[in-house]
Amino acid sequence: MGRAHAANILAGKVPRLQLVAAAESDPVKLASLPGVRAFSSFDEMAASGLIDAVLIATPHFQHTSLGIQALKAGLHVLVEKPISVHKADAERLIAAHTRPNQVFAAMFNQRTDPYYIRLHELIHGGELGEVRRMNWIITNWFRTEHYYASGSWRATWAGEGGGILLNQCPHNLDLLQWLFGMPLRVRAFCRFGQYHDIEVEDDVTAYLEFPGGATGVFIASTGESPGSNRLEITAERGRVVLENDKIAYSRNDIPMSEFSRKSETSFSQPAATESLLVESNHGPQHIGVLKNFTDAILDGTPLLVAGAEGIRSLELANAMLLSTWTDSTVELPLDGKIYEKWLEGKIAGSKPKTRAKTFTSNDDFAKSFGR
Amino acid sequence: MGRAHAANILAGKVPRLQLVAAAESDPVKLASLPGVRAFSSFDEMAASGLIDAVLIATPHFQHTSLGIQALKAGLHVLVEKPISVHKADAERLIAAHTRPNQVFAAMFNQRTDPYYIRLHELIHGGELGEVRRMNWIITNWFRTEHYYASGSWRATWAGEGGGILLNQCPHNLDLLQWLFGMPLRVRAFCRFGQYHDIEVEDDVTAYLEFPGGATGVFIASTGESPGSNRLEITAERGRVVLENDKIAYSRNDIPMSEFSRKSETSFSQPAATESLLVESNHGPQHIGVLKNFTDAILDGTPLLVAGAEGIRSLELANAMLLSTWTDSTVELPLDGKIYEKWLEGKIAGSKPKTRAKTFTSNDDFAKSFGR
Repeated sequence: MGRAHAANILAGKVPRLQLVAAAESDPVKLASLPGVRAFSSFDEMAASGLIDAVLIATPHFQHTSLGIQALKAGLHVLVEKPISVHKADAERLIAAHTRPNQVFAAMFNQRTDPYYIRLHELIHGGELGEVRRMNWIITNWFRTEHYYASGSWRATWAGEGGGILLNQCPHNLDLLQWLFGMPLRVRAFCRFGQYHDIEVEDDVTAYLEFPGGATGVFIASTGESPGSNRLEITAERGRVVLENDKIAYSRNDIPMSEFSRKSETSFSQPAATESLLVESNHGPQHIGVLKNFTDAILDGTPLLVAGAEGIRSLELANAMLLSTWTDSTVELPLDGKIYEKWLEGKIAGSKPKTRAKTFTSNDDFAKSFGR
Repeated sequence: MGRAHAANILAGKVPRLQLVAAAESDPVKLASLPGVRAFSSFDEMAASGLIDAVLIATPHFQHTSLGIQALKAGLHVLVEKPISVHKADAERLIAAHTRPNQVFAAMFNQRTDPYYIRLHELIHGGELGEVRRMNWIITNWFRTEHYYASGSWRATWAGEGGGILLNQCPHNLDLLQWLFGMPLRVRAFCRFGQYHDIEVEDDVTAYLEFPGGATGVFIASTGESPGSNRLEITAERGRVVLENDKIAYSRNDIPMSEFSRKSETSFSQPAATESLLVESNHGPQHIGVLKNFTDAILDGTPLLVAGAEGIRSLELANAMLLSTWTDSTVELPLDGKIYEKWLEGKIAGSKPKTRAKTFTSNDDFAKSFGR
């Protein structure tokens, strides 16, 4: 991911943002960063005086430790998702952000997608009325065994701290809480190594209950092909379905519960008007977040996603795993310390993969960005 | 429902089947049955010697008692869905069917729908390979408060023994088990009076685990408008979605798990061919079942749905309620006696509705048959 960000910045796609240094020891990766000063340690780079801001795009566990270091060094920080591996770590990271003029942001690029922005407007602008149900089937995250074998750390508790919930789904979980708010409770059914020879979860079904009585289902998998990405929202004013780059809206003339109360017949239902919203593209994505980060530093522009907001998708992911491990419903807010203990237990029993291969050149990483 | 069946038979839509008698005391309903001998009690009708077979279309609780009576009287029996209100009663009913030449069938008319027949062929003919997930959102069962107020017995534990799972969803639950088999365990989240002033469930989310590792989600509601009816099946050979009178099939050239194991890249996936299957209609439905029942009696034709099969949809419904009441996962087969105890407790606390109205002539019952 760091390489993709570096390429965007070096190509001048983010005005006023310069890539001047990188903490990277791999000579292959450094070769793709002409003119960039290389540091073999993050410490040295942070203390070099060369940089004002840092983008942390490392393995997940380091997001917390490097993030804290960078914040303490007074740097502006943009951290890749997930901002940490578990809630207690995220709290430590957020607590290190104490300076009022220091910008701390998180790379939730899908917040720049006009489709999700439209859904957010429909819900939070009041058009839809009360949301009663959400159902997100996001199973188009297919990954091969080769992917999981591409690093001995990959898809291990010690190496990544989780599977699809930590690696592929942070965007979806962030959008879920952005659109619908945080649930009150989570009952999830994760399956570990269901489709692949891995120790972490590659298949998830979660049931959510929100304040006010709305319910939700979230389904994710890296084992299904072709997979689906279908988000259905049931609200008093009607039904909205985002699928295949279209938002289909069935708008009730009368909100459904009001109609139910007032109707003088048993089998009638509100008249509805159908419309189809299509956006011309999926927005600026990573470049949009980089621009916003830059503008926040230079001009005080409000952040699209403050770093502290990154704790919510993490809390959802942690709650889904904890619910599975404890075979019970998890009430939110989650106790981060309890989750940390559970995760430490998993890490203690974690084994690096022996069948690890190296990445081959036929791997196109750009294909890994699901929508 | 009895009136609709009677009208079909009287109109001659079922060759070789004659409606000669009815146990019905309501003079309004009797007026619509010209030439049919009316009995004020089922006993008398069963003993009259006038009839060879009986169709039981009464309130749910009577399906068992009248069914047993009819079977013991040596009549051929076709019972409306659900065959009973709970599993223990269904076992009693099924146990009363002892004569080898006596036909005992259940009115699961949606088994005659070419769409579901096609799905059954795709799964059981082997085309799809192993099914990995099913997701059925069947929320187009919208009912108004007026509907629930249309009888003091309606949507009460004492009067119906359940809500959407017993009244609207038996067809869907029957199709679910017909297509995918019975799950090993059920974890459900029913909501009681979520949308209406009723004591039974009008909103359900259930998570299912099947033998072999497939999972499922079943979502139903009578509170949502416009609601959805979307059945997604993920199998090794691809994805099948039944929605809006179309079956969309994305067929993988290579089964997904085989592709995953053999691929030499991380982010590729099997090539898929899209096809769309559209049937010309929804089949003969109730008339088809009546014809099949007649043919079974006269010619020994195999039944579309043997009465005994009706226990499965009931067991699913019961398990979903029991899981909610006990806030835990229910293993199948369910212990019918335990469920009966729980239901008796609900019935003991059940109250007839005081706001009951009578049905008005603007109610078109035909609108109540969801697909």
